[in-house]
Amino acid sequence: MPESLIDGQPCDRVPVDDRGLLYGDQLFETVAFHAGRAPLWDLHMKRLSRDAPRLLMPLPDPGLLARECRQLAAGQDRCVIRICLTRGSGGRAYEPPARIEPRRILIRRPWPADLEPRRREGICVHTSPVHLAAGSLLAGSKHGSRIEQVLAAEHARRSGVDEALLFDASGRLVEAIAGNLVLVIDDQPVTPELGGAGVAGVGLDWLRSVESGLFTRALGAEDLRQASAVMVINSVAGIRPVRALDGRRLTVDPRCRRWQQSWDRLFECAD
Amino acid sequence: MPESLIDGQPCDRVPVDDRGLLYGDQLFETVAFHAGRAPLWDLHMKRLSRDAPRLLMPLPDPGLLARECRQLAAGQDRCVIRICLTRGSGGRAYEPPARIEPRRILIRRPWPADLEPRRREGICVHTSPVHLAAGSLLAGSKHGSRIEQVLAAEHARRSGVDEALLFDASGRLVEAIAGNLVLVIDDQPVTPELGGAGVAGVGLDWLRSVESGLFTRALGAEDLRQASAVMVINSVAGIRPVRALDGRRLTVDPRCRRWQQSWDRLFECAD
Repeated sequence: MPESLIDGQPCDRVPVDDRGLLYGDQLFETVAFHAGRAPLWDLHMKRLSRDAPRLLMPLPDPGLLARECRQLAAGQDRCVIRICLTRGSGGRAYEPPARIEPRRILIRRPWPADLEPRRREGICVHTSPVHLAAGSLLAGSKHGSRIEQVLAAEHARRSGVDEALLFDASGRLVEAIAGNLVLVIDDQPVTPELGGAGVAGVGLDWLRSVESGLFTRALGAEDLRQASAVMVINSVAGIRPVRALDGRRLTVDPRCRRWQQSWDRLFECAD
Repeated sequence: MPESLIDGQPCDRVPVDDRGLLYGDQLFETVAFHAGRAPLWDLHMKRLSRDAPRLLMPLPDPGLLARECRQLAAGQDRCVIRICLTRGSGGRAYEPPARIEPRRILIRRPWPADLEPRRREGICVHTSPVHLAAGSLLAGSKHGSRIEQVLAAEHARRSGVDEALLFDASGRLVEAIAGNLVLVIDDQPVTPELGGAGVAGVGLDWLRSVESGLFTRALGAEDLRQASAVMVINSVAGIRPVRALDGRRLTVDPRCRRWQQSWDRLFECAD
Protein backbone atom coordinates (compact mmCIF):
# COMPACT_ATOMS: atom_id res chain seq x y z
CA MET A 1 0.00 0.00 0.00
CA PRO A 2 1.73 3.24 -1.05
CA GLU A 3 1.93 6.05 1.50
CA SER A 4 2.37 8.74 -1.11
CA LEU A 5 1.40 9.40 -4.69
CA ILE A 6 3.08 11.89 -6.98
CA ASP A 7 0.95 12.81 -9.99
CA GLY A 8 -0.98 9.64 -9.35
CA GLN A 9 1.98 7.27 -9.15
CA PRO A 10 3.25 5.56 -5.99
CA CYS A 11 6.44 7.51 -5.23
CA ASP A 12 8.13 8.94 -2.17
CA ARG A 13 10.76 11.18 -3.79
CA VAL A 14 10.32 14.61 -5.33
CA PRO A 15 12.59 16.13 -8.00
CA VAL A 16 15.12 18.46 -6.45
CA ASP A 17 13.95 21.32 -8.68
CA ASP A 18 10.36 21.21 -7.41
CA ARG A 19 9.27 24.77 -6.71
CA GLY A 20 7.48 23.70 -3.54
CA LEU A 21 10.86 22.64 -2.18
CA LEU A 22 12.83 25.59 -3.54
CA TYR A 23 10.45 28.47 -2.69
CA GLY A 24 7.56 27.22 -0.57
CA ASP A 25 5.62 27.61 -3.84
CA GLN A 26 2.59 25.43 -3.21
CA LEU A 27 -0.90 25.15 -1.77
CA PHE A 28 -1.81 22.35 0.58
CA GLU A 29 -4.73 20.82 2.40
CA THR A 30 -4.56 18.45 5.35
CA VAL A 31 -7.63 16.25 5.16
CA ALA A 32 -9.02 13.96 7.88
CA PHE A 33 -10.26 10.60 6.57
CA HIS A 34 -12.46 8.30 8.64
CA ALA A 35 -13.17 4.90 7.16
CA GLY A 36 -12.17 6.13 3.73
CA ARG A 37 -14.37 9.23 3.77
CA ALA A 38 -13.55 12.88 4.36
CA PRO A 39 -16.57 14.68 5.87
CA LEU A 40 -15.00 18.11 5.29
CA TRP A 41 -13.93 17.39 1.71
CA ASP A 42 -16.15 20.02 0.10
CA LEU A 43 -14.81 22.74 2.40
CA HIS A 44 -11.22 21.76 1.56
CA MET A 45 -12.01 21.92 -2.15
CA LYS A 46 -13.76 25.27 -1.68
CA ARG A 47 -10.62 26.71 -0.09
CA LEU A 48 -8.36 25.26 -2.82
CA SER A 49 -10.61 26.76 -5.50
CA ARG A 50 -10.40 30.14 -3.80
CA ASP A 51 -6.64 30.01 -3.13
CA ALA A 52 -5.38 28.72 -6.50
CA PRO A 53 -6.32 31.89 -8.43
CA ARG A 54 -4.83 34.04 -5.65
CA LEU A 55 -1.54 32.22 -6.19
CA LEU A 56 -1.98 32.46 -9.98
CA MET A 57 -2.02 28.67 -10.14
CA PRO A 58 -4.32 26.51 -12.25
CA LEU A 59 -7.21 24.84 -10.44
CA PRO A 60 -6.77 21.14 -9.78
CA ASP A 61 -9.42 18.64 -10.84
CA PRO A 62 -11.28 17.84 -7.59
CA GLY A 63 -12.52 14.53 -8.98
CA LEU A 64 -8.96 13.39 -9.65
CA LEU A 65 -7.85 14.50 -6.19
CA ALA A 66 -10.75 12.64 -4.61
CA ARG A 67 -9.96 9.41 -6.46
CA GLU A 68 -6.29 9.54 -5.51
CA CYS A 69 -7.09 10.33 -1.88
CA ARG A 70 -9.54 7.43 -1.71
CA GLN A 71 -6.82 5.18 -3.10
CA LEU A 72 -4.43 6.26 -0.33
CA ALA A 73 -7.07 6.09 2.41
CA ALA A 74 -8.37 2.66 1.38
CA GLY A 75 -8.27 0.14 4.21
CA GLN A 76 -7.34 2.74 6.85
CA ASP A 77 -9.58 3.24 9.88
CA ARG A 78 -8.49 6.85 10.32
CA CYS A 79 -5.73 8.73 8.58
CA VAL A 80 -4.69 12.18 7.47
CA ILE A 81 -3.88 12.94 3.85
CA ARG A 82 -1.86 15.97 2.97
CA ILE A 83 -2.59 17.19 -0.55
CA CYS A 84 0.27 19.35 -1.86
CA LEU A 85 -0.12 21.23 -5.12
CA THR A 86 3.27 22.62 -5.97
CA ARG A 87 3.93 24.87 -8.95
CA GLY A 88 5.96 22.00 -10.41
CA SER A 89 9.47 22.37 -11.82
CA GLY A 90 11.11 24.95 -14.03
CA GLY A 91 11.12 28.70 -14.40
CA ARG A 92 13.96 31.11 -13.74
CA ALA A 93 14.57 31.22 -10.00
CA TYR A 94 11.52 32.87 -8.38
CA GLU A 95 9.91 33.36 -11.79
CA PRO A 96 7.56 30.50 -12.65
CA PRO A 97 7.64 29.01 -16.15
CA ALA A 98 5.21 30.48 -18.68
CA ARG A 99 3.41 27.15 -18.76
CA ILE A 100 2.85 25.89 -15.24
CA GLU A 101 2.51 22.15 -14.72
CA PRO A 102 1.58 21.74 -11.07
CA ARG A 103 2.75 18.64 -9.23
CA ARG A 104 0.23 16.75 -7.07
CA ILE A 105 1.88 15.22 -4.02
CA LEU A 106 -0.42 13.23 -1.75
CA ILE A 107 0.98 11.93 1.51
CA ARG A 108 -0.83 9.67 3.97
CA ARG A 109 -0.01 10.11 7.65
CA PRO A 110 -1.15 8.04 10.61
CA TRP A 111 -3.91 9.45 12.78
CA PRO A 112 -2.35 11.56 15.58
CA ALA A 113 -2.09 9.45 18.72
CA ASP A 114 -3.03 11.83 21.52
CA LEU A 115 -5.91 13.84 20.10
CA GLU A 116 -8.68 12.29 22.19
CA PRO A 117 -7.36 13.06 25.71
CA ARG A 118 -6.44 16.60 24.62
CA ARG A 119 -9.93 17.14 23.23
CA ARG A 120 -11.43 15.99 26.52
CA GLU A 121 -9.07 17.57 29.04
CA GLY A 122 -7.96 20.56 27.04
CA ILE A 123 -4.60 21.83 25.89
CA CYS A 124 -1.93 24.03 27.46
CA VAL A 125 -0.94 26.99 25.33
CA HIS A 126 1.33 29.97 25.59
CA THR A 127 1.43 33.29 23.83
CA SER A 128 4.07 32.69 21.17
CA PRO A 129 7.26 34.73 21.17
CA VAL A 130 6.87 34.55 17.37
CA HIS A 131 4.62 37.17 15.86
CA LEU A 132 3.33 36.87 12.31
CA ALA A 133 4.21 39.45 9.67
CA ALA A 134 1.23 41.75 9.07
CA GLY A 135 -0.59 42.87 5.97
CA SER A 136 0.09 39.79 3.86
CA LEU A 137 -1.63 39.76 0.48
CA LEU A 138 -1.98 36.00 0.91
CA ALA A 139 -3.56 36.05 4.36
CA GLY A 140 -6.15 33.32 4.60
CA SER A 141 -4.47 31.06 2.01
CA LYS A 142 -2.92 27.75 3.01
CA HIS A 143 0.29 28.13 1.02
CA GLY A 144 3.52 26.29 1.65
CA SER A 145 5.59 29.21 2.96
CA ARG A 146 5.10 28.45 6.64
CA ILE A 147 8.43 29.19 8.28
CA GLU A 148 6.73 31.39 10.91
CA GLN A 149 4.50 28.49 12.03
CA VAL A 150 7.51 26.17 12.18
CA LEU A 151 9.40 28.63 14.36
CA ALA A 152 6.39 29.11 16.63
CA ALA A 153 5.99 25.31 16.89
CA GLU A 154 9.65 24.88 17.82
CA HIS A 155 9.28 27.51 20.58
CA ALA A 156 6.13 25.74 21.81
CA ARG A 157 7.93 22.38 21.84
CA ARG A 158 10.81 23.83 23.86
CA SER A 159 8.33 25.39 26.29
CA GLY A 160 6.46 22.12 26.70
CA VAL A 161 3.07 23.50 25.64
CA ASP A 162 0.65 21.89 23.18
CA GLU A 163 -0.12 24.94 21.09
CA ALA A 164 0.50 28.68 20.94
CA LEU A 165 -1.48 31.85 20.29
CA LEU A 166 -0.06 34.03 17.56
CA PHE A 167 -0.35 37.79 17.28
CA ASP A 168 0.70 39.70 14.20
CA ALA A 169 3.25 42.50 14.06
CA SER A 170 0.52 45.10 14.54
CA GLY A 171 -0.71 43.51 17.77
CA ARG A 172 -3.76 41.71 16.40
CA LEU A 173 -4.58 38.26 17.70
CA VAL A 174 -4.63 35.97 14.64
CA GLU A 175 -4.69 32.22 15.23
CA ALA A 176 -3.03 29.22 16.81
CA ILE A 177 -0.06 27.55 15.13
CA ALA A 178 -2.23 24.84 13.55
CA GLY A 179 -5.76 26.06 13.96
CA ASN A 180 -8.07 29.03 14.35
CA LEU A 181 -9.23 30.49 17.64
CA VAL A 182 -12.59 30.89 19.28
CA LEU A 183 -12.76 33.05 22.41
CA VAL A 184 -15.68 33.49 24.74
CA ILE A 185 -15.93 37.13 25.82
CA ASP A 186 -18.92 38.32 27.88
CA ASP A 187 -20.55 34.98 27.14
CA GLN A 188 -20.25 35.65 23.38
CA PRO A 189 -18.19 33.31 21.14
CA VAL A 190 -15.96 35.31 18.84
CA THR A 191 -13.19 34.46 16.39
CA PRO A 192 -10.45 36.90 15.35
CA GLU A 193 -10.80 38.62 12.01
CA LEU A 194 -7.67 37.43 10.22
CA GLY A 195 -6.81 40.77 8.65
CA GLY A 196 -3.40 40.44 7.04
CA ALA A 197 -2.09 37.17 8.48
CA GLY A 198 -3.08 33.60 9.20
CA VAL A 199 -4.98 30.82 7.49
CA ALA A 200 -8.73 30.66 6.97
CA GLY A 201 -9.23 27.20 8.42
CA VAL A 202 -11.59 24.55 7.17
CA GLY A 203 -12.48 23.55 10.75
CA LEU A 204 -13.57 27.12 11.50
CA ASP A 205 -15.45 27.24 8.22
CA TRP A 206 -17.40 24.18 9.36
CA LEU A 207 -18.09 25.74 12.76
CA ARG A 208 -19.50 28.86 11.11
CA SER A 209 -21.83 26.63 9.11
CA VAL A 210 -23.33 25.07 12.27
CA GLU A 211 -23.12 27.99 14.73
CA SER A 212 -24.79 31.20 13.68
CA GLY A 213 -23.93 32.83 17.02
CA LEU A 214 -20.20 32.97 16.27
CA PHE A 215 -19.04 36.54 15.68
CA THR A 216 -15.91 37.64 13.82
CA ARG A 217 -14.05 40.81 14.75
CA ALA A 218 -10.58 42.26 15.22
CA LEU A 219 -9.19 41.07 18.57
CA GLY A 220 -6.17 42.12 20.57
CA ALA A 221 -4.34 41.34 23.80
CA GLU A 222 -6.99 43.00 25.96
CA ASP A 223 -9.73 40.80 24.45
CA LEU A 224 -7.64 37.75 25.21
CA ARG A 225 -7.28 38.85 28.85
CA GLN A 226 -11.05 39.22 29.10
CA ALA A 227 -11.80 35.82 27.57
CA SER A 228 -13.34 33.30 29.95
CA ALA A 229 -12.65 30.45 27.54
CA VAL A 230 -10.44 29.87 24.52
CA MET A 231 -10.71 27.07 21.95
CA VAL A 232 -8.53 25.95 19.06
CA ILE A 233 -10.16 24.42 16.01
CA ASN A 234 -8.67 22.68 13.01
CA SER A 235 -9.88 20.16 10.47
CA VAL A 236 -8.11 17.15 11.97
CA ALA A 237 -8.34 17.61 15.74
CA GLY A 238 -11.69 19.37 15.69
CA ILE A 239 -12.33 21.70 18.64
CA ARG A 240 -10.10 21.57 21.69
CA PRO A 241 -10.59 23.70 24.80
CA VAL A 242 -7.59 25.56 26.21
CA ARG A 243 -7.21 24.62 29.87
CA ALA A 244 -4.20 26.83 30.59
CA LEU A 245 -2.99 29.96 28.84
CA ASP A 246 0.42 31.24 29.92
CA GLY A 247 -0.21 29.41 33.22
CA ARG A 248 -3.66 30.97 33.74
CA ARG A 249 -6.38 28.38 34.24
CA LEU A 250 -9.36 28.69 31.87
CA THR A 251 -12.78 27.10 32.10
CA VAL A 252 -14.30 24.92 29.41
CA ASP A 253 -17.27 26.66 27.88
CA PRO A 254 -20.35 24.40 27.56
CA ARG A 255 -20.57 25.35 23.87
CA CYS A 256 -17.25 23.60 23.33
CA ARG A 257 -18.75 20.26 24.36
CA ARG A 258 -21.80 20.88 22.19
CA TRP A 259 -19.64 21.65 19.17
CA GLN A 260 -17.51 18.58 19.84
CA GLN A 261 -20.67 16.46 19.78
CA SER A 262 -21.72 17.96 16.42
CA TRP A 263 -18.23 17.30 15.12
CA ASP A 264 -18.34 13.70 16.28
CA ARG A 265 -21.72 13.15 14.65
CA LEU A 266 -20.33 14.52 11.40
CA PHE A 267 -17.43 12.11 11.51
CA GLU A 268 -19.48 9.16 12.76
CA CYS A 269 -21.82 9.61 9.82
CA ALA A 270 -18.76 9.03 7.72
CA ASP A 271 -18.25 5.59 9.26
CA MET B 1 29.09 14.89 -13.46
CA PRO B 2 26.25 15.17 -10.92
CA GLU B 3 24.19 18.34 -10.96
CA SER B 4 23.01 17.93 -7.40
CA LEU B 5 24.24 16.43 -4.16
CA ILE B 6 22.07 15.49 -1.22
CA ASP B 7 24.04 15.08 1.99
CA GLY B 8 27.12 14.66 -0.14
CA GLN B 9 25.76 11.98 -2.48
CA PRO B 10 24.86 12.47 -6.15
CA CYS B 11 21.06 12.50 -6.08
CA ASP B 12 18.27 14.49 -7.70
CA ARG B 13 15.28 13.37 -5.60
CA VAL B 14 14.28 14.51 -2.13
CA PRO B 15 12.16 12.49 0.32
CA VAL B 16 8.55 13.57 0.21
CA ASP B 17 8.59 14.30 3.96
CA ASP B 18 11.40 16.85 3.71
CA ARG B 19 10.40 19.87 5.79
CA GLY B 20 11.80 22.23 3.16
CA LEU B 21 9.18 20.85 0.78
CA LEU B 22 6.33 20.66 3.30
CA TYR B 23 6.74 24.02 5.08
CA GLY B 24 9.35 26.15 3.33
CA ASP B 25 11.47 25.17 6.34
CA GLN B 26 14.98 25.87 5.08
CA LEU B 27 17.73 28.38 4.59
CA PHE B 28 19.41 28.80 1.24
CA GLU B 29 22.25 30.59 -0.49
CA THR B 30 22.67 31.12 -4.21
CA VAL B 31 26.39 31.27 -4.88
CA ALA B 32 28.12 32.45 -8.07
CA PHE B 33 31.10 30.31 -9.08
CA HIS B 34 33.66 31.48 -11.64
CA ALA B 35 36.27 28.92 -12.66
CA GLY B 36 35.54 26.86 -9.60
CA ARG B 37 35.85 29.74 -7.12
CA ALA B 38 33.22 31.78 -5.30
CA PRO B 39 34.56 35.28 -4.58
CA LEU B 40 31.65 36.07 -2.22
CA TRP B 41 31.87 32.76 -0.33
CA ASP B 42 32.77 34.30 3.01
CA LEU B 43 29.80 36.68 2.89
CA HIS B 44 27.44 33.80 2.09
CA MET B 45 28.80 31.83 5.05
CA LYS B 46 28.52 34.90 7.28
CA ARG B 47 24.83 35.19 6.43
CA LEU B 48 24.19 31.46 6.97
CA SER B 49 25.92 31.66 10.36
CA ARG B 50 23.71 34.57 11.32
CA ASP B 51 20.47 33.08 9.98
CA ALA B 52 20.74 29.50 11.28
CA PRO B 53 20.38 30.49 14.97
CA ARG B 54 17.47 32.79 14.07
CA LEU B 55 15.71 29.77 12.58
CA LEU B 56 16.74 27.62 15.56
CA MET B 57 18.71 25.41 13.18
CA PRO B 58 22.16 23.94 13.76
CA LEU B 59 25.04 25.62 11.96
CA PRO B 60 26.37 23.75 8.95
CA ASP B 61 30.08 22.94 8.62
CA PRO B 62 31.34 25.57 6.14
CA GLY B 63 34.33 23.40 5.22
CA LEU B 64 32.05 20.55 4.19
CA LEU B 65 29.82 22.90 2.20
CA ALA B 66 32.87 24.33 0.45
CA ARG B 67 34.18 20.90 -0.52
CA GLU B 68 30.82 19.79 -1.88
CA CYS B 69 30.35 23.02 -3.82
CA ARG B 70 33.82 22.69 -5.33
CA GLN B 71 32.94 19.16 -6.40
CA LEU B 72 29.80 20.42 -8.18
CA ALA B 73 31.54 23.43 -9.72
CA ALA B 74 34.56 21.47 -10.97
CA GLY B 75 35.12 21.84 -14.71
CA GLN B 76 32.50 24.60 -15.08
CA ASP B 77 33.50 27.99 -16.46
CA ARG B 78 30.68 29.79 -14.66
CA CYS B 79 27.80 28.33 -12.71
CA VAL B 80 25.45 29.03 -9.84
CA ILE B 81 25.16 26.66 -6.91
CA ARG B 82 22.13 26.81 -4.70
CA ILE B 83 22.87 25.54 -1.19
CA CYS B 84 19.67 24.48 0.59
CA LEU B 85 19.76 23.57 4.25
CA THR B 86 16.37 22.13 5.08
CA ARG B 87 15.32 21.10 8.58
CA GLY B 88 15.34 17.50 7.31
CA SER B 89 12.51 15.05 7.85
CA GLY B 90 10.30 14.24 10.80
CA GLY B 91 8.50 16.11 13.53
CA ARG B 92 4.77 16.49 14.04
CA ALA B 93 3.43 18.71 11.31
CA TYR B 94 4.84 22.22 11.85
CA GLU B 95 6.66 21.05 14.98
CA PRO B 96 10.24 20.03 14.21
CA PRO B 97 11.64 16.85 15.73
CA ALA B 98 13.49 17.21 19.02
CA ARG B 99 16.67 16.16 17.28
CA ILE B 100 17.04 18.05 14.02
CA GLU B 101 19.08 16.46 11.26
CA PRO B 102 19.29 19.09 8.53
CA ARG B 103 19.48 17.97 4.93
CA ARG B 104 22.09 19.57 2.63
CA ILE B 105 20.82 19.91 -0.91
CA LEU B 106 23.27 21.43 -3.38
CA ILE B 107 22.04 22.14 -6.89
CA ARG B 108 24.16 23.39 -9.78
CA ARG B 109 22.52 25.65 -12.33
CA PRO B 110 23.88 27.00 -15.60
CA TRP B 111 25.04 30.59 -15.64
CA PRO B 112 22.08 32.85 -16.58
CA ALA B 113 22.23 33.61 -20.30
CA ASP B 114 21.29 37.26 -20.57
CA LEU B 115 23.00 38.91 -17.63
CA GLU B 116 25.66 40.79 -19.56
CA PRO B 117 23.42 42.88 -21.88
CA ARG B 118 21.13 43.73 -18.95
CA ARG B 119 24.10 44.83 -16.87
CA ARG B 120 25.25 47.10 -19.68
CA GLU B 121 21.95 48.48 -20.96
CA GLY B 122 19.95 48.30 -17.78
CA ILE B 123 16.72 46.58 -16.81
CA CYS B 124 13.06 47.54 -17.06
CA VAL B 125 11.20 47.33 -13.78
CA HIS B 126 7.74 48.06 -12.48
CA THR B 127 6.38 48.71 -9.03
CA SER B 128 5.02 45.31 -8.05
CA PRO B 129 1.30 44.89 -7.36
CA VAL B 130 2.53 42.47 -4.66
CA HIS B 131 3.44 44.07 -1.37
CA LEU B 132 5.42 42.20 1.26
CA ALA B 133 3.95 41.48 4.68
CA ALA B 134 5.46 43.85 7.25
CA GLY B 135 7.06 43.36 10.62
CA SER B 136 8.47 39.87 9.95
CA LEU B 137 10.65 38.48 12.74
CA LEU B 138 12.72 36.81 10.04
CA ALA B 139 13.30 39.91 7.91
CA GLY B 140 16.80 39.80 6.48
CA SER B 141 17.05 36.00 6.50
CA LYS B 142 17.17 34.01 3.28
CA HIS B 143 14.70 31.32 4.29
CA GLY B 144 12.74 29.07 1.94
CA SER B 145 9.27 30.58 2.48
CA ARG B 146 9.29 32.81 -0.58
CA ILE B 147 5.78 32.65 -1.96
CA GLU B 148 5.58 36.47 -2.05
CA GLN B 149 8.64 36.69 -4.30
CA VAL B 150 7.22 33.99 -6.58
CA LEU B 151 3.97 35.87 -6.92
CA ALA B 152 5.79 39.14 -7.62
CA ALA B 153 7.95 37.37 -10.22
CA GLU B 154 4.89 35.93 -11.95
CA HIS B 155 3.32 39.40 -12.12
CA ALA B 156 6.59 40.78 -13.54
CA ARG B 157 6.74 37.99 -16.14
CA ARG B 158 3.18 38.73 -17.23
CA SER B 159 3.97 42.45 -17.44
CA GLY B 160 7.09 41.81 -19.53
CA VAL B 161 9.48 43.57 -17.13
CA ASP B 162 12.84 42.24 -15.92
CA GLU B 163 12.40 42.97 -12.22
CA ALA B 164 10.06 44.68 -9.78
CA LEU B 165 10.28 47.01 -6.82
CA LEU B 166 8.58 45.74 -3.70
CA PHE B 167 7.02 47.81 -0.96
CA ASP B 168 5.83 46.34 2.30
CA ALA B 169 2.31 46.57 3.72
CA SER B 170 3.23 49.71 5.66
CA GLY B 171 4.40 51.55 2.54
CA ARG B 172 8.14 51.14 2.98
CA LEU B 173 10.27 50.47 -0.06
CA VAL B 174 12.07 47.18 0.64
CA GLU B 175 13.87 45.48 -2.23
CA ALA B 176 13.64 44.00 -5.72
CA ILE B 177 12.32 40.47 -6.22
CA ALA B 178 15.80 38.99 -6.41
CA GLY B 179 18.10 41.69 -5.14
CA ASN B 180 18.50 44.77 -3.01
CA LEU B 181 18.05 48.34 -4.18
CA VAL B 182 20.35 51.31 -4.41
CA LEU B 183 18.74 54.67 -5.21
CA VAL B 184 20.50 57.93 -5.98
CA ILE B 185 18.68 60.82 -4.31
CA ASP B 186 20.18 64.33 -4.36
CA ASP B 187 23.36 62.75 -5.70
CA GLN B 188 23.58 60.52 -2.63
CA PRO B 189 23.47 56.69 -2.97
CA VAL B 190 21.09 55.20 -0.46
CA THR B 191 19.67 51.72 0.16
CA PRO B 192 16.38 51.05 1.96
CA GLU B 193 16.52 50.00 5.58
CA LEU B 194 14.85 46.59 5.44
CA GLY B 195 12.79 47.02 8.59
CA GLY B 196 10.44 44.06 8.83
CA ALA B 197 10.64 42.53 5.36
CA GLY B 198 13.11 41.49 2.69
CA VAL B 199 16.44 39.73 2.47
CA ALA B 200 19.79 41.15 3.54
CA GLY B 201 21.62 40.39 0.31
CA VAL B 202 25.19 39.25 -0.05
CA GLY B 203 25.67 41.49 -3.09
CA LEU B 204 24.66 44.54 -1.05
CA ASP B 205 26.87 43.37 1.79
CA TRP B 206 29.80 43.37 -0.64
CA LEU B 207 28.88 46.84 -1.93
CA ARG B 208 28.87 48.21 1.60
CA SER B 209 32.38 46.81 2.07
CA VAL B 210 33.74 48.74 -0.91
CA GLU B 211 31.61 51.90 -0.83
CA SER B 212 31.65 53.85 2.40
CA GLY B 213 29.41 56.55 0.88
CA LEU B 214 26.34 54.29 0.74
CA PHE B 215 23.71 55.34 3.28
CA THR B 216 20.93 53.18 4.70
CA ARG B 217 17.60 54.67 5.73
CA ALA B 218 13.85 54.07 5.62
CA LEU B 219 12.56 54.90 2.13
CA GLY B 220 9.08 55.31 0.74
CA ALA B 221 7.25 56.10 -2.48
CA GLU B 222 8.22 59.79 -2.39
CA ASP B 223 11.93 58.90 -2.19
CA LEU B 224 11.51 56.65 -5.18
CA ARG B 225 9.91 59.48 -7.15
CA GLN B 226 12.86 61.73 -6.32
CA ALA B 227 15.49 59.18 -7.29
CA SER B 228 17.55 60.08 -10.36
CA ALA B 229 18.89 56.54 -10.63
CA VAL B 230 17.94 53.13 -9.30
CA MET B 231 20.10 49.99 -9.23
CA VAL B 232 19.41 46.37 -8.34
CA ILE B 233 22.19 44.29 -6.81
CA ASN B 234 22.43 40.59 -6.11
CA SER B 235 25.24 38.11 -5.67
CA VAL B 236 24.93 36.50 -9.11
CA ALA B 237 24.08 39.36 -11.48
CA GLY B 238 26.04 42.00 -9.59
CA ILE B 239 24.82 45.57 -10.05
CA ARG B 240 22.35 46.39 -12.80
CA PRO B 241 21.07 49.88 -13.54
CA VAL B 242 17.33 50.39 -13.96
CA ARG B 243 16.70 52.07 -17.29
CA ALA B 244 12.93 52.32 -16.99
CA LEU B 245 10.71 52.33 -13.91
CA ASP B 246 6.97 52.07 -14.57
CA GLY B 247 7.74 53.51 -18.01
CA ARG B 248 9.75 56.48 -16.64
CA ARG B 249 13.23 56.68 -18.14
CA LEU B 250 16.08 56.76 -15.61
CA THR B 251 19.69 57.73 -16.11
CA VAL B 252 22.61 55.46 -15.30
CA ASP B 253 24.57 56.93 -12.42
CA PRO B 254 28.35 56.95 -13.03
CA ARG B 255 28.85 55.18 -9.69
CA CYS B 256 27.03 52.18 -11.15
CA ARG B 257 29.74 51.71 -13.78
CA ARG B 258 32.47 52.16 -11.17
CA TRP B 259 30.89 49.52 -8.94
CA GLN B 260 30.48 47.17 -11.89
CA GLN B 261 34.20 47.50 -12.57
CA SER B 262 35.04 46.67 -8.95
CA TRP B 263 32.70 43.68 -9.17
CA ASP B 264 34.35 42.48 -12.36
CA ARG B 265 37.82 42.77 -10.83
CA LEU B 266 36.65 40.71 -7.87
CA PHE B 267 35.36 37.97 -10.14
CA GLU B 268 38.31 38.15 -12.56
CA CYS B 269 40.69 37.65 -9.65
CA ALA B 270 38.85 34.41 -9.14
CA ASP B 271 39.90 33.19 -12.57
